[in-house]
Amino acid sequence: MVKYPSGVRVTRSLSKKTTTQYGSRGMSLEERLNQSNLFYTANRIAIIHKKPTPIQVVKVDYPKRSAARIVEAYYRQASTTDYNGVYQGKYIDFEAKETTNKTRLPLANLPQHQIEHMKNCHEQGGIVFLIIAFTAHQKVFLLPYEMLEHYLTTSDNPKSIPYDFLKENAYECEQGLFPHIDYLKAVDQLLERSY
Amino acid sequence: MVKYPSGVRVTRSLSKKTTTQYGSRGMSLEERLNQSNLFYTANRIAIIHKKPTPIQVVKVDYPKRSAARIVEAYYRQASTTDYNGVYQGKYIDFEAKETTNKTRLPLANLPQHQIEHMKNCHEQGGIVFLIIAFTAHQKVFLLPYEMLEHYLTTSDNPKSIPYDFLKENAYECEQGLFPHIDYLKAVDQLLERSY
Repeated sequence: MVKYPSGVRVTRSLSKKTTTQYGSRGMSLEERLNQSNLFYTANRIAIIHKKPTPIQVVKVDYPKRSAARIVEAYYRQASTTDYNGVYQGKYIDFEAKETTNKTRLPLANLPQHQIEHMKNCHEQGGIVFLIIAFTAHQKVFLLPYEMLEHYLTTSDNPKSIPYDFLKENAYECEQGLFPHIDYLKAVDQLLERSY
Repeated sequence: MVKYPSGVRVTRSLSKKTTTQYGSRGMSLEERLNQSNLFYTANRIAIIHKKPTPIQVVKVDYPKRSAARIVEAYYRQASTTDYNGVYQGKYIDFEAKETTNKTRLPLANLPQHQIEHMKNCHEQGGIVFLIIAFTAHQKVFLLPYEMLEHYLTTSDNPKSIPYDFLKENAYECEQGLFPHIDYLKAVDQLLERSY
């Protein structure tokens, strides 16, 4: 972690330069999903976007003859999931989580109001899921909301999801170059089974 | 328009105080749509949210023991529409525009890439439209994407949409207290006719 004099913390961009990248290795889950979504849009397969990060703007300067400049603002907690869109007329809604842990995905970063949002969208007939990347295993899973709910309500340890549970119960997403993560193929499997 | 010493421009909150408010009068279209969406969520009718405003963060301070503080950031152009969500399993996507003009809605604030996004979502089978408020007439219309496209490609004056065109061709939205703007009733009419 490097701190510039200005106070800006730089992590990913510097650490990336020190490793040779093969294909999508070294890219974050978010970058790989964004590339996949661009691929889906360009090929008219689906229109799915990551929502902007919610920011509370407190103070804005309006310099003459130039763009409004935000000089005080804070990150807010998201009230929904990060990604949504449309695939074959159907509503798609998901949250993406990545972990370097080898055996479990900690759920500390999945707050209750996000689970509530997923439940609401599921009840409205949307296709709702988590995309979970285990970087140590180079595996990406799609966990449908129903299975997540089942796990959270029946498990002795609902604060994290075991890798083995996902291997058995979730849909594995194919990984490649175009798209990096073909999660819509996993959605197809999900639709075949349950809708 | 008042400029505080800090450079913050204050408009709406001050001007609101000078008028007595009856029901939703004095509220912006955005505020009324947000209230309507909360109503839809609370009554399990639909899950529709306004997306956060996209902001490009340039510089962040990390004070010890307090929240990260953004000290330089700029507004970015949205690459999608402002609102989307799910209604009875269907994907809903729309942009909201308000005008004080009595005869026409200027389309200068509807950039080409937003129209492109609407077209893409429409082609994916989503329900896509504009919500247009004419404050002078206290009328709110839902204009389906197909009609917008038809207007833009056939009109002599595609830089604005006449009020009379909307009165004849768009769906008028009922206004009340709960919700302030019942645009999903207009969506029902749209679905009955075209899907």
